[in-house]
Amino acid sequence: MSTLEKFYAGDAIALAKIITHIENRGPQTDQILAELYPRTGKASSVGVTGPPGAGKSTLVDKLCAMLTDSGKTVGVIAVDPTSPFTGGALLGDRIRMQDLTANKNVFIRSMATRGSMGGLAVSTSEVIKVMDAFGKDIILVETVGVGQVELDVAEACDITIVVLVPESGDSVQALKAGLMEIADIFCVNKADREGSGRIVSEINMIMDVKREKSGREFPIVATEAVNNVGLDQLMEKINMEIERIKSDEFFMKHRRRKIRYDIMKTVEHRLKNRLRKDILSEERLSGYIEDIFNGRGNPYDLARRLIDDKSEE
Amino acid sequence: MSTLEKFYAGDAIALAKIITHIENRGPQTDQILAELYPRTGKASSVGVTGPPGAGKSTLVDKLCAMLTDSGKTVGVIAVDPTSPFTGGALLGDRIRMQDLTANKNVFIRSMATRGSMGGLAVSTSEVIKVMDAFGKDIILVETVGVGQVELDVAEACDITIVVLVPESGDSVQALKAGLMEIADIFCVNKADREGSGRIVSEINMIMDVKREKSGREFPIVATEAVNNVGLDQLMEKINMEIERIKSDEFFMKHRRRKIRYDIMKTVEHRLKNRLRKDILSEERLSGYIEDIFNGRGNPYDLARRLIDDKSEE
Repeated sequence: MSTLEKFYAGDAIALAKIITHIENRGPQTDQILAELYPRTGKASSVGVTGPPGAGKSTLVDKLCAMLTDSGKTVGVIAVDPTSPFTGGALLGDRIRMQDLTANKNVFIRSMATRGSMGGLAVSTSEVIKVMDAFGKDIILVETVGVGQVELDVAEACDITIVVLVPESGDSVQALKAGLMEIADIFCVNKADREGSGRIVSEINMIMDVKREKSGREFPIVATEAVNNVGLDQLMEKINMEIERIKSDEFFMKHRRRKIRYDIMKTVEHRLKNRLRKDILSEERLSGYIEDIFNGRGNPYDLARRLIDDKSEE
Repeated sequence: MSTLEKFYAGDAIALAKIITHIENRGPQTDQILAELYPRTGKASSVGVTGPPGAGKSTLVDKLCAMLTDSGKTVGVIAVDPTSPFTGGALLGDRIRMQDLTANKNVFIRSMATRGSMGGLAVSTSEVIKVMDAFGKDIILVETVGVGQVELDVAEACDITIVVLVPESGDSVQALKAGLMEIADIFCVNKADREGSGRIVSEINMIMDVKREKSGREFPIVATEAVNNVGLDQLMEKINMEIERIKSDEFFMKHRRRKIRYDIMKTVEHRLKNRLRKDILSEERLSGYIEDIFNGRGNPYDLARRLIDDKSEE
């Protein structure tokens, strides 16, 4: 049996192998993705993002357990920057994963950023598709940090939960970081802490403009994930959002938006790869660096020349 | 007098106009950058990054004042995500800028991320060059957040200061986010808070491996920027780092690394722009979306076809 046949038969090891192949940009990457594409579109992907320390990992663990208890199969993608010092996922995450992997309805995958320079959102989107084709009902995507990558990864998901904590200035920082624009649901975690009411008011204030414009709810749920408080309400809102994007009114628009995203990102990513192998191969690049170092030309004229040459080939 | 002539004569309004032109990708962008390029290379750019709420803005303000007091001219680039709700920089920043702009040796520029999708680091690097060509001695680049964009922007700078606060888990989160790898100098701000000693030990522990390998200092400075504590020491370390990269031993390597960065980023960015205007123009993209929506093809075969077509032109 080939790996793909095993994958179709529901073998989790085959799933892991295919993800690894795609993450490493193996030679069959595009072929596998093209083959799996018609089987995608059934799963819902839910991004869980927010500032460091907001308790996203705990929240994802709890949601996972609730989903599998209700008979759903779950995929988890933990977008986790690799550090050269630790050589991979940090200890906390590893412990956590061992916990969860005891549950065979959950498949967990840690994605490393390792200097992928913008390629991470593409890989995440592809891994979501592989898990979707495998038959997972829900795919939870957890990100670390509040930067552009997180916004990009959120864009790859159907629904985004922004997790905040009742700390002074957190909502303003989240606003600055662009998180308010990508949120479908807000989760104010660690809601037993001081300032919980205030942050909910702040988010309400910020979101009211958007609610009025769109007629959407943009719900805020207060949780204490560690103590299992508020999780049922959060799950209810997640299910409502999933229903919403699957409704007749939104489905076609949502689906077209996802296809647009996939086309743009895939073409950009593949073009960038070709750039590094071809137009700016290490050998050519070294030559250009020496030229400019020695006062001949500049990066802007070079770019124009290289890209114009391309079109004249 | 043309804008460029005024720029050469030291007119700050001309500087602002040229930055706007470049930030908006005006038609003369590459031409201006090519023209200014031979005048660059004198300024030192210093990135100031770290998690939200670490007090980066205050720190930058104080460093600015110290630098101008010692007779230096300073440029500040505040990388500041634009929110559709506030329509630009947030209130705090605006107030602050009014404060600083009273000082005519300081030129402040707020850069908006507005969905630039990876283009921000390129624009930042270009604005650094424009300020450099204008004659600024030091360019401080302040970023918000701890994501890939911040790492990219840091890469565009000569030196990077990572600002942390003595909050539980902050050093681990910074490690996760890849900040430890880009830091030349650490600043533990709000050092009067509890846990200040512990975070310094944690950073020391993490950095000792890197120190041993590289023979470099990677200094840690404890500050209370609001109370002007530790700022002299921080400035001393900044000057030491600037001396280091300008020393005979490091200069050529550092300069080549910067040229490499500029070539890679410029070519990638210009190629991406052409992609959106040409191969994936809105009209063509709409057609591809409809095809895939109706079950014909998939993004991966499409990407292969588009990029291969390109090379056969």
